[in-house]
Amino acid sequence: MSIDQQLKNLDSLFPAGFNENQKAQAKTLFLKNLSLEAHRFYGGKMQTLPKCGIYGFNWLGVWYTPGVSNISTTIRDDNDASFALSNRGNLVAVVSDSTRVLGDGDCTPPGGLGVMEGKAMLMKYLGGVDAVALCVDSKGPDGKNDPQRLIDFVKMAQHSFGAINLEDISQPNCFKVLDELREACDIPVWHDDAQGTACITLAGLINALKLAGKNIGNAKIVLLGAGASNTTIARLIMADGGDPAKMIIFDTKGGLHPDRGDIRGDKRNYRKWELCEKTNLGKVTDIAEAMKGADVLIALSSPGPDTVKREWIRVMADKSIVFTCANPVPEIWPYAAKEEGAFIVATGRGDFPNQVNNSVCFPGILKGALLVRAKKITDGMAIRCAHSIAEFSEKRGISPDNIIANMEETEVFVHEAADVAEQAIAEGVARVKLSREEVYNRARADIASARAIVEDMKKLGHIVEPPAELMETALAKAIEAVQKKT
Amino acid sequence: MSIDQQLKNLDSLFPAGFNENQKAQAKTLFLKNLSLEAHRFYGGKMQTLPKCGIYGFNWLGVWYTPGVSNISTTIRDDNDASFALSNRGNLVAVVSDSTRVLGDGDCTPPGGLGVMEGKAMLMKYLGGVDAVALCVDSKGPDGKNDPQRLIDFVKMAQHSFGAINLEDISQPNCFKVLDELREACDIPVWHDDAQGTACITLAGLINALKLAGKNIGNAKIVLLGAGASNTTIARLIMADGGDPAKMIIFDTKGGLHPDRGDIRGDKRNYRKWELCEKTNLGKVTDIAEAMKGADVLIALSSPGPDTVKREWIRVMADKSIVFTCANPVPEIWPYAAKEEGAFIVATGRGDFPNQVNNSVCFPGILKGALLVRAKKITDGMAIRCAHSIAEFSEKRGISPDNIIANMEETEVFVHEAADVAEQAIAEGVARVKLSREEVYNRARADIASARAIVEDMKKLGHIVEPPAELMETALAKAIEAVQKKT
Repeated sequence: MSIDQQLKNLDSLFPAGFNENQKAQAKTLFLKNLSLEAHRFYGGKMQTLPKCGIYGFNWLGVWYTPGVSNISTTIRDDNDASFALSNRGNLVAVVSDSTRVLGDGDCTPPGGLGVMEGKAMLMKYLGGVDAVALCVDSKGPDGKNDPQRLIDFVKMAQHSFGAINLEDISQPNCFKVLDELREACDIPVWHDDAQGTACITLAGLINALKLAGKNIGNAKIVLLGAGASNTTIARLIMADGGDPAKMIIFDTKGGLHPDRGDIRGDKRNYRKWELCEKTNLGKVTDIAEAMKGADVLIALSSPGPDTVKREWIRVMADKSIVFTCANPVPEIWPYAAKEEGAFIVATGRGDFPNQVNNSVCFPGILKGALLVRAKKITDGMAIRCAHSIAEFSEKRGISPDNIIANMEETEVFVHEAADVAEQAIAEGVARVKLSREEVYNRARADIASARAIVEDMKKLGHIVEPPAELMETALAKAIEAVQKKT
Repeated sequence: MSIDQQLKNLDSLFPAGFNENQKAQAKTLFLKNLSLEAHRFYGGKMQTLPKCGIYGFNWLGVWYTPGVSNISTTIRDDNDASFALSNRGNLVAVVSDSTRVLGDGDCTPPGGLGVMEGKAMLMKYLGGVDAVALCVDSKGPDGKNDPQRLIDFVKMAQHSFGAINLEDISQPNCFKVLDELREACDIPVWHDDAQGTACITLAGLINALKLAGKNIGNAKIVLLGAGASNTTIARLIMADGGDPAKMIIFDTKGGLHPDRGDIRGDKRNYRKWELCEKTNLGKVTDIAEAMKGADVLIALSSPGPDTVKREWIRVMADKSIVFTCANPVPEIWPYAAKEEGAFIVATGRGDFPNQVNNSVCFPGILKGALLVRAKKITDGMAIRCAHSIAEFSEKRGISPDNIIANMEETEVFVHEAADVAEQAIAEGVARVKLSREEVYNRARADIASARAIVEDMKKLGHIVEPPAELMETALAKAIEAVQKKT
C-alpha cells in the first residue's frame, strides 16, 4: 500500500505491532524526515511574484522608470500613500532573533528561517496576507542577544511593512521588544507567541465556559506557567472580565504574589510583577491547594505527561475546564484529566480534540488590521478576535470535544478580519474606514485568491509533485528508528 | 482610436500638432499618470506565494510544526544548509535608505518603495530571482542619514537573504556602505547604481571598441562626472586592461589628479582619491584640452543637452565613442554628437539607439551568484558579466547603432548567470560547484517559470486587466498638461 498524497493513511502504514505511542512517535519522525527532504526538493517554501499586469515591456515604464517617479514623489509628500501604492498595505514582516525557535531553543539566526518562512506561508494560505521572513542577528559586541538591537532593527524596517509579527524571541527579551515596539511603531506589532496564543486560548475559554454554564467573572482560574504566553493570557482574561482576585498564577518557583521579591527585583520581569500585585491575594504557594475548587486550569508550562498531577484535577470544581497546552506532550494526557473528572480538555496538539492553535488567530487578526491600515493591534482588538472565533464556532455548533474552529474552516478567518477591523475603527486606530461588509468581502476574496493560485500552480505544473520515493523513504526511516528504540 | 494594451501606439494618439519634444514630454507624463493609477488599482506590484506543494492540511505538518523542527536544527548545526532548505538561496533584499531615489532625491524612507518593489519585480521577471524591498530609515539621533546604521541593519538582516542589492543611496554614504558590507557579509552585496552601471557600460564599451577597431589598453578615455557610477566604471575599465595613464576623470571642480587637496582632505572620498593618484598624470584641468584626441568619452554627469559641448566631440580621435548617459536628457543629443563626428553614441534612454541600462545586467549577475551560493560578487565577476553581455551581443550581431543586447533578449540573462557562476567558482568565492550547463539550465528554467506564471495568472484572472479608463484618463491628462505649457 502506498502513501496517500494527502498523508491521510499514515496510521495504516505502520507495522501492526505498533502501539499508540509508537505510532505517534513514528508519525512525528515521518513528518520531520519528509520535511527535510521536501524543503530540499523545493528549495524552501515561498517565492515572490508580480500581482500586477505586465503587458509587454512597455509596461515596465509604468512599473519602473520613468513612470514610477510619480510613486516616489507621491509617497514622499504623503507617507501614508505607501499603504495603497505599494504592497506594504498587505505585507507583514515575520521577525525573529531565532533564540527560541518552537521547541528547539536558540537555533542561530538563520536557524529560524524554516519556521518563519512557514509562518509566511500560513499568513498567505490562511489569511491572504503577504509575508516575509526576517531572521535577525541581534547579538551585541558581547555575543549576547540584545533586545535593543532588535528594537532598532524593526524601527528601521517598519516603513516597508504594514505590520510586524514578532516570533520565537526568548524571555525576558520578548516583553521589552514587544512593549517598546508597540509604542514606537506606527504599524501593528504583533507578538504571536504571546498575543496570538492568548487570543486563541481566550476564544477556547469563552466557549468552554459557555458549555459549562459558567461566567468568566465568577470563575476561579489557575494558570500554570508564567511565560510570554500565560502572562498575556492572564492579562487578556482580566481585560475580558476575569476577576484577578480569583486568579492564581504559578511559575517554576511557586505562586505569583506581592511577596515575590525575586520577580520584583528584576526589571525585565515587569509583566510578571504586574500579575504579582493583582492576583493571588491569599498568597497561595502550593498548587494542590490552589486547585481546590478551581473552575479552570490553563497550563502552558513544561512537557508532561506528569507535570499536572491527577489529584490536582480531582479536586477541581464541577464541570472543570483544563487547558493542557505544553508541546509535544501535554502536562497531563487528556484521557487522564477526563478520568479525574475534567469536563473539557484542550491541548496544543492536532491529534486530540480541542486543539488550541494560534494559526486559527493570527492570519485573520492581521488581515483585518491591514485592511483598515491600523496603527496598532490593541488588547481590545485581540479580545474582539477571541470573541469572533468563539461566536463563529458557536454558530456552526460547539460541544465539549469541539469548542472552537480549526484552521481548515476558512470562514473563521474572514469573520475575524471583519470583526477586528470594526474594532480598530471603533478604537480610533484605523487609518481608513471600511464597512464590515467591505472588509469581509475583501478578506474573503484575498484568501480565495491565494488558495486558487496555489491550486492552479499545481495544476499547470509550476509546482510539481514531490517524488513518491521522498515519502516512502521518510516513512521507512521513521519506522526503523522507532523499531530500534524498542 | 483606443490605447493599445501593450502601449505600442502612443505616438499615434498625440495631437497631430505635437513636435518630437512635446511627444516625448507627453509620453513621460502619460507613463507617470498611468503609473499612479495602476499602482493604486493593484495595490502595489509584488506578492508572496508558496512555491511548494500543499496537498491538504496534513502537509502543514511537513511545512510547519512538527516537521519543520528538522529544518531548524539542521540549519542550526550547519548554517550553510539555509541556502538549500529555505528560499534564502534565491532571495535578494533590495535595500535603500531612499535618499537618492532615481532622479527624485531624498523621498523619505517609504518613498523608495515604488522603485525598490519595481526592482524586485525586474529581479523576478528578468532573472527568476525572488526579491523583497527594504526601505530603511537610517537617520540617527541628529536626523541625518547615518551610513553606519545602514551597515548595521544589513549585517543583522543578512542571514535571511542570499544576496543584498543596495540601491539609491546618496553619496558619499554609498561608498562606505558598499565597501564595508562587501567585507563584512558572507553573501554578495551588490551596489547596482555603481557596479551595475559600471558593468553594463563596460559591456557597451567592449563592443564599441571592437566596432571601432580599437584596443582598450591603447584608448584615451575621458570620464565626465565622478559619482558612484563613473568612479566604479573607471575602476572596472582599469581592471579590464584600461591604461590609467591614458585616462582623465572630471568632477564638477575639474580634472582629478594628485594635487586635488579638496578630495584628499575628505576621507569619505577615498574612492575618488584613488583615481586622483593613478590617472591624469599630466594634471589636465580643462575638459576641452582633455578631449583632444580622446577615443572615448563616458559622461555620467548633469542632464544636458548642452553639458557636453559640440566642439569637445569635434576634437576627439577618429571613430570616437561617446557615452552620454545623464537622465532624463543626455549631456549632448546623440544627433549632435554624430554631426560632430562621433562614430558610436550610447545613452541611458530607451528611445535612442544603444541604451546603457543596468536592468540588462543585475538580474543575470545576481542569478549566477545565487545559484553557486557565492560569498561575494568580485570585480572579476562584474567584468566577466560585462564580457558575457558583450559576447552574447556580438554573436547575435552588433553594429554602431546596436552595440549590446536589451532587456527583452531573455537569453542574455541566462548567459550572464552561467558565466558569472563559472567565474565565482574560478575565483574561489562559490559555496557550491555547478557545471556551466547546470547553471545555464537552472537559470533558464527559473526565468521561464516566472514569466509563465505571470502569463497564467493573467489568463486565469488572478491578475485582472486594468480598466481602459485608467489609460485613457492618463493620456488625456498628459496631453492637456503639455498643451497648457505651450
